[in-house]
This record gives sequence, structure tokens and C-alpha cells, in this order.
Amino acid sequence: MLSKTKLKYLNSLKIKKNRISASCFLAEGDKIVRDILHSGWTITELFASKEWLEKQTGKELAGLEKIHETDQGEIKKISSLKTPQNVLAVVKMPEAESVPEPPHDQLCLALERIQDPGNLGTIIRTAAWFGIEYIFCSPDSVDVFNPKVIQSTMSAILNVKIIYTGLSELAELFIQNSLHVYGTFPRGNNIYKEDLASAGLVLMGNESAGISSGLAKKVTHRLSIPAYSEKQELQIDSLNLASATAIICSEFKRRSADS
Amino acid sequence: MLSKTKLKYLNSLKIKKNRISASCFLAEGDKIVRDILHSGWTITELFASKEWLEKQTGKELAGLEKIHETDQGEIKKISSLKTPQNVLAVVKMPEAESVPEPPHDQLCLALERIQDPGNLGTIIRTAAWFGIEYIFCSPDSVDVFNPKVIQSTMSAILNVKIIYTGLSELAELFIQNSLHVYGTFPRGNNIYKEDLASAGLVLMGNESAGISSGLAKKVTHRLSIPAYSEKQELQIDSLNLASATAIICSEFKRRSADS
Repeated sequence: MLSKTKLKYLNSLKIKKNRISASCFLAEGDKIVRDILHSGWTITELFASKEWLEKQTGKELAGLEKIHETDQGEIKKISSLKTPQNVLAVVKMPEAESVPEPPHDQLCLALERIQDPGNLGTIIRTAAWFGIEYIFCSPDSVDVFNPKVIQSTMSAILNVKIIYTGLSELAELFIQNSLHVYGTFPRGNNIYKEDLASAGLVLMGNESAGISSGLAKKVTHRLSIPAYSEKQELQIDSLNLASATAIICSEFKRRSADS
Repeated sequence: MLSKTKLKYLNSLKIKKNRISASCFLAEGDKIVRDILHSGWTITELFASKEWLEKQTGKELAGLEKIHETDQGEIKKISSLKTPQNVLAVVKMPEAESVPEPPHDQLCLALERIQDPGNLGTIIRTAAWFGIEYIFCSPDSVDVFNPKVIQSTMSAILNVKIIYTGLSELAELFIQNSLHVYGTFPRGNNIYKEDLASAGLVLMGNESAGISSGLAKKVTHRLSIPAYSEKQELQIDSLNLASATAIICSEFKRRSADS
């Protein structure tokens, strides 16, 4: 049975400022917890059902000091999920990465003021699929350690470095290093017909507002995903941000695999 | 001030069986409500703030019998959204479409046991963007009139016909009409290198289980979106379903625009 103090602490980690002061975040569910156990990240406390604990036959749990046997009813009191899982971990935040030298051998993503946790998690998952190592987020973006972000990455958070930084300065740095800065706009050039480099920075704007006018000035190549909905009564004016990012990553990677 | 009975009725529409018996569903927010007012669909009751009502200067509201002036506090009691909007409508369900003759001039999507409302809504939005007219869902899929589905379509629901039907029989019908049935599998053929027709049926499987083995037998062309994550420590085993669908629609449409 978890104490009130413990429950209060765990629930406090749903709020960004509490995560920062504790340097910890929550990860829920069998897949992500097992993936974290096999990664270089540190689990400080583990809450799991008897059945889950019995299934871990290897050395995964060796060295873990705080293992709490509990049940789904208790996990439900902490869970952010509709269907609570049988395991939940408190994970030490990895040290914040500093902005690297812009890489000349790979594509990077930058997200301006992304707000929806599901979108950020899904984009991280897509980035990992396409071998993208860095995602830069403007400081006013949703926090990557938000439980819903972590959940929707489906463990891909372990493969991608997420760095919060000013995107104008970042874009400038890419340009100084002779790299392209791509951005998507309603009236950009047809992405299917443009030359796309295998390195550079791809900027994606906020869910409703798109790329801000300040940041737009740094874009060297304006892209657009053409719509094929001309015949329809209602003009569809945008794609979901995570879906648009998936299409763009796919198109860049297809080209670099071709070349 | 809304009566308790009214509030109870409105909240009951969050449940599928109540929507079916009332033949109505809820739509929230300025964009979708205005889009519905301009469409052929029927709003049976409208709940809106004074400010919102005053802004409708045209004939949009003409003929609407039941307009309730209310405030955000009241709308919050019905809303499924985190940030309640200033307008909410009860909409008459359009008549269920019957399965059409498989079209020879356009691509159709079929979703097997899709569970997540956000995924279905996002896929509908993507389909509308790419001019896809029909989405078929297996009968055990999430209900398209679920408020979260409606919300995440961003009005695209007005452009796409959603038909619940058995997918094995549907696939058979496409095959009998000399059309291809595509499906995505972990070890299908590289979608970037396969010939893709401009018509046919694309099957997408359940979020965790993929395409069932029964339905897989009907697939004439197996596709895969190649991963580029070989160098990473953790093997990423899948994309988000809506993101994968977006990539596939993009690739099909790019080819048919090329040809």
C-alpha cells in the first residue's frame, strides 16, 4: 500500500515544474519500462504488480533499489492513462544535451511552439523510425517529459535527442554551416518536385499558427505538401502536424536512399 | 440556464448507443460548427455564447429552430475538450452510406479495428487532404461520431464518406473488380520501389496487432515503409497508425500525380 506522501509525490510529477525540481519523470507500461531498463537511463523507483515482477527473469531489476510491489488499483491512482498498466517507473531525467555542431550527414527537425503532447510524442516516434537523431524544440513548446508525450513516443524517446533552444539562432547556425533550412508553408514549393538535401534543418510550425513570421525569415527553402482535394465542397486547409511531419520525413528519406 | 434534463441528454450523446438511438452527435467549436452550417448536414440544436451568436451576421442561422444562448461555463458541462469552446451543436447523423461499386478512378482506405479516436479523426483529415472519398472501417472500429473523432477531423468529416462494413467481403469485391488490395506489413515490399496504382484499396491494421491473419489473405500487394533506424540502440518496431497512413497516402498520390 503506497503512502499518501508517496502518491502525492508521484502525482506531482505530472506537472513540469515539479519534474524539474525532482529531475525525474514518469514512464508507464510494460514496453517502455523494459526498454528503459535496457537503456542507459536510470530508474529511481519502480511500481509493479506481482505478476509483472515475476516475469522479469533476467538481470533487468538487479541494482534497482526501490521496487514496490503494488496492484493496478494503486497504479491507477498515479496513472495518466485511461487503461492503467501493471508497471510504472520514476525515471531520472537524462542530462540536457547542448546544441551540437550542425551535422552534415543527417537531417534534423525543429518544432516551433508545438503544443499537443500526442503530436510531440508521435513526431519523436516518426523521427526514430527514419533515423533522425536530433529534434530541436522552441522553449515555449510542450515539455518532452510530460507523461502523455513519453507514452506516445512508444519508447522512441530513448533514440532521439530532444533539445530546447531558440530556433532563430539555431537556423542561423545551420546557414552559417552552409546547410539548408527548410520550412513548410501553405504556398511553398511542391515537396515532391523540389530538390531535397540529405542534411539540413526542417522547421515545423505551431499546430494552429504555423511557422512564425520571425522564424520564417530564416527559412532558405519553402516547401508545401500539395493537397488533392480540389473537387471537394469544403476546402481542407491543413494536415495534422504529426501527419505532415511524417510525410515530410518520408519524402526526405526516400530521396536520400535513392541517391 | 440549461435544464438538468437537457444537460443529461447532451452528455448522453458521448456514448455510442445513445447517439444511435437519438440519431444525433455532438460537434464543438467555431470552425466545425460553421463548416456544418455551410454543409448539407442538419444541426438540430445549437448552444452558443452571446458573442458567438452576434458574430454570425449572414444567413447561417436562418431556419435553425433551437438556438440556446448560453455561456462557456455551461458549455463546459457538456464539452469533451480540455478548453471548452463557445459553441456546440447537436447534429443529425447523415444517413449511412451503402458500400459503393469499387471506384476505378480513386484510391480507397480501409481500417481494421482502429481503436484510437484521435487516430481515426487524423486519418479522416489526411484522407480529405489527399482527395480520398471513401474510408471503410470494420464494424469493431471506434465510432466515427465519437466527439474526439469529430474534433480531430477538423471538419474533414464533411468531405469523406465513412462506411462500416466487413473488410474481407469488401476486399473480395475489389479483387472481383480487377482492383489491387494493398496492405502494410512489417516485411512487405518497400513502398518507395513498388508500382502503386491510382485506384484500389489500402488496408491499415489495428494499432497494436496490425492486419489480422484472416484479412491478410485478401491482400494482393504487401507494402512496407522502410525504417532508417539501423544504427540506433533500440529497434523501433512501428510508426503511429495515423502517421503511417499519411506516409502511404502521400506516396500513392505523389505517384498518380506523376503519371
